[in-house]
Amino acid sequence: MNKNSESNSRRKFLATIGTAMTVSTLIPKLSVATDYSYTQPSANLTVQQVIDLILTTIPGAPFKDTVDTIKSGDGQQEVKGIVTTMFATVDVIRQTAALGANFIIGHEPTFYSHRDETVWLENDPVFEFKNALLKKHGIVVWRFHDYWHTHRPDGVQMGVLTKLGWQQYFNPDNPRMVNIPSTSLDDIVKHAKKSLGIRQVRYIGDLKQSCKRVALMPGAAGGRPQIQLLQKEKPDVLIVGEISEWETAEYIRDAQSMKLPMALVVLGHAESEEPGMEWLVSWLQPKVKDVKVTHVPSHYPFKEV
Amino acid sequence: MNKNSESNSRRKFLATIGTAMTVSTLIPKLSVATDYSYTQPSANLTVQQVIDLILTTIPGAPFKDTVDTIKSGDGQQEVKGIVTTMFATVDVIRQTAALGANFIIGHEPTFYSHRDETVWLENDPVFEFKNALLKKHGIVVWRFHDYWHTHRPDGVQMGVLTKLGWQQYFNPDNPRMVNIPSTSLDDIVKHAKKSLGIRQVRYIGDLKQSCKRVALMPGAAGGRPQIQLLQKEKPDVLIVGEISEWETAEYIRDAQSMKLPMALVVLGHAESEEPGMEWLVSWLQPKVKDVKVTHVPSHYPFKEV
Repeated sequence: MNKNSESNSRRKFLATIGTAMTVSTLIPKLSVATDYSYTQPSANLTVQQVIDLILTTIPGAPFKDTVDTIKSGDGQQEVKGIVTTMFATVDVIRQTAALGANFIIGHEPTFYSHRDETVWLENDPVFEFKNALLKKHGIVVWRFHDYWHTHRPDGVQMGVLTKLGWQQYFNPDNPRMVNIPSTSLDDIVKHAKKSLGIRQVRYIGDLKQSCKRVALMPGAAGGRPQIQLLQKEKPDVLIVGEISEWETAEYIRDAQSMKLPMALVVLGHAESEEPGMEWLVSWLQPKVKDVKVTHVPSHYPFKEV
Repeated sequence: MNKNSESNSRRKFLATIGTAMTVSTLIPKLSVATDYSYTQPSANLTVQQVIDLILTTIPGAPFKDTVDTIKSGDGQQEVKGIVTTMFATVDVIRQTAALGANFIIGHEPTFYSHRDETVWLENDPVFEFKNALLKKHGIVVWRFHDYWHTHRPDGVQMGVLTKLGWQQYFNPDNPRMVNIPSTSLDDIVKHAKKSLGIRQVRYIGDLKQSCKRVALMPGAAGGRPQIQLLQKEKPDVLIVGEISEWETAEYIRDAQSMKLPMALVVLGHAESEEPGMEWLVSWLQPKVKDVKVTHVPSHYPFKEV
């Protein structure tokens, strides 16, 4: 099934990133402020020129196999305005049109699977409606996932750290680990909810547990990378965006049953990485001075009852 | 990565099951009461004899490739008592020992990934603790996932329908679809929470929406099978155990934005399938009269805050 190969490549990519990070002590340090040079073309920018400009800052770009492709529209279109977001939802598309922008840079898929394949969606009313809406407003969608995670520092990680006010704890040699002053799990959760604007989180653990070593893995890296981070770092708490419930959650549940002080906090996928697409605005705006870059959050889709 | 092939086979299996169901109108009807013949051996039963006895009731069993293998212990061990559960957690293992039972039939993995591979867990303290606990109490764990879903009717589906009091709506020609009298989404959610013992569910949709056609897909079938069921059946609501947040949830969110009356309710993986392992007791007990069969729920591992 295509779905499987899509999940594969998603997890392979994320696993590779994880591995690259764990050996980062062996390669020269990159300062947070390090950036590659670029030149903004003098004429009005096309979508492809903005993409190319971004790629000059990404180590190893362009990649042979990546999900970071144009999902809708024409790369030669002139850019009137850029919107950054997690998901190019129907609602985000409408807001983009209302802003007079015509280029959405989204972190996650547009068409409901990792590789955004559309053959299986032909004649699907939701796909057709969304596709027609994009065409009607002349909006191009490009995914910025693999490249943004490959940027040094990882743009999502830095966005989340910044939003949490934890950027001073960033360690480029071990970017997943955040060593904070001793804080109760309860206070960490309250702080994360408030600073990231999250209504509710799911957790496994004791809210009274004291935490210093926080493993921060926004998004859905997959069970094995998440558990391998737990094995390697033995953090007091792992904070993630999303899990598969038969993997990381069960490992943490068993760890709790044997009284290991290792908690899990699940923020929600969109909420956990949205700050990375907000941080992208401050990173990208100086590079495209004549084009307005706006962050439009797609928000967490669920309610609870 | 091994993780990937594990996810693959999980989704391939579930997709196959889904496909088999969609063509079930083409094959002869199986009544709910239909069962294959078996003979209980006169001597004390071994684990393997119980497994073999179960397999005589499963169409096409034994399968060449299945995750339904013995995860710990010896199939030749005599069975003192059987526990059915969703996850053989450390806590469920302790309860099994306290009951004097020594055979756990679990629906989901024991060791944190779909194929229960353990090489990557060597020297892991959680794995070693759990493994030692199983050995100390002489408990065998067998997974009953692929076979139970292949049983006609699907044992999980029937367990959930029964617990919901919806067994009269079961249609063997289209087992995922449940046509109920017109009910508000709010009342469906309240009913599901109360009858399945769930503290909280996540949903996307309008609680005031009226629903007749309910698509019921416990567990985590994967985004494409879930969305393909939506495409084929156009239900008023899809009730699932677990989703990937970049797949089914985003499809439903876009459907809602275009005013399609199609809601999503996410019960939680363990809670959504546990009734299938409870239903297994009434199904299995008459087949192994001299051995006590007990259901020990593993429960949902999360709290919310």
